[in-house]
Amino acid sequence: MKELEERIAQEGRIIDGRIIKVDGFLNHRIDTKLLNRMGKEFYRLFGDLGVTKILTAEASGIAVAVIAAQYFDVPVVFAKKAKSDNIEGGLYASEIYSYTYNRKVTFLVSKQWLGAEDRVLIIDDFLANGEALRGLIDIVDMAGAQLMGVGVAVEKGFQEGGKRLRERGINLQSLAIIEGVEDGKFRFRQA
Amino acid sequence: MKELEERIAQEGRIIDGRIIKVDGFLNHRIDTKLLNRMGKEFYRLFGDLGVTKILTAEASGIAVAVIAAQYFDVPVVFAKKAKSDNIEGGLYASEIYSYTYNRKVTFLVSKQWLGAEDRVLIIDDFLANGEALRGLIDIVDMAGAQLMGVGVAVEKGFQEGGKRLRERGINLQSLAIIEGVEDGKFRFRQA
Repeated sequence: MKELEERIAQEGRIIDGRIIKVDGFLNHRIDTKLLNRMGKEFYRLFGDLGVTKILTAEASGIAVAVIAAQYFDVPVVFAKKAKSDNIEGGLYASEIYSYTYNRKVTFLVSKQWLGAEDRVLIIDDFLANGEALRGLIDIVDMAGAQLMGVGVAVEKGFQEGGKRLRERGINLQSLAIIEGVEDGKFRFRQA
Repeated sequence: MKELEERIAQEGRIIDGRIIKVDGFLNHRIDTKLLNRMGKEFYRLFGDLGVTKILTAEASGIAVAVIAAQYFDVPVVFAKKAKSDNIEGGLYASEIYSYTYNRKVTFLVSKQWLGAEDRVLIIDDFLANGEALRGLIDIVDMAGAQLMGVGVAVEKGFQEGGKRLRERGINLQSLAIIEGVEDGKFRFRQA
């Protein structure tokens, strides 16, 4: 998606050669207009698959997912990251390693809100090593639901996550794929 | 807001006489259509105040805030709850006590995304004791920004948070105010 690539090129920054910071429009400050156009693009990519539910993970996946869900006209379920008093038993749980926080994180989804009848689109803001998406896909499998696709806003193409998911035959579509950085400039994978 | 009261009456549950669970449409599974109508209602309540930014807190405030922000045509900034590698220096920080998690939580907002020029509407999903909102208001004050109002989806009117904020003269509007529960039925404050 050209507009997203342009915003990354203009505002994105690299920290420690590892973290791509786009918190001016995606991760901390949210540009709702851009997200709206991204939601429309996800609908163009996945809109004819009979999706019944969009699954994402808290926290920064929620914004992208709910805006996209308006086009699909389906509810969003977001995986919670820690057991709070607000979640009772009857949970799907999948443990992942968070490279952002350098610790294990458990995704929790109530069995009440995801089941075998669901056709699920996973949407997330970022894809790097793919741990978060692996955890969400685990939960779709545990529910016996059908995974229709995975939509990602920004993929770091120089890490292995996207490759691994595509090798598993998963219908993964990323709106922008960063191949690398040269002379401080982002290079994107061509469609 | 009648529709929200009806959904709470139909699907809400009380846990330990303390937690009101509405995770079928607001906190875990998100009913995007309902949120859309809630966003429109927030715009009706606050739309003429020249709001330039909507501030919320991760995680469950994000969905309500971004959907509402589409009507206001302004960006959302969400306070983060823990220091991750993705946030650099230059932060407003406010410590609150989370009754949901029974521990202290620090809200962080980058100084880059909130400043003295901003006219801020705070939106959150829940108001009980008001700790989360107190933390967000602190951050608006630290930024030297102007607080135009606070919009809440569900207020627990039998706890003190709402009263305290209104006594401070804050323009607080809640879409549904639960006064109490009698014989397992929710009682709402009349407008």
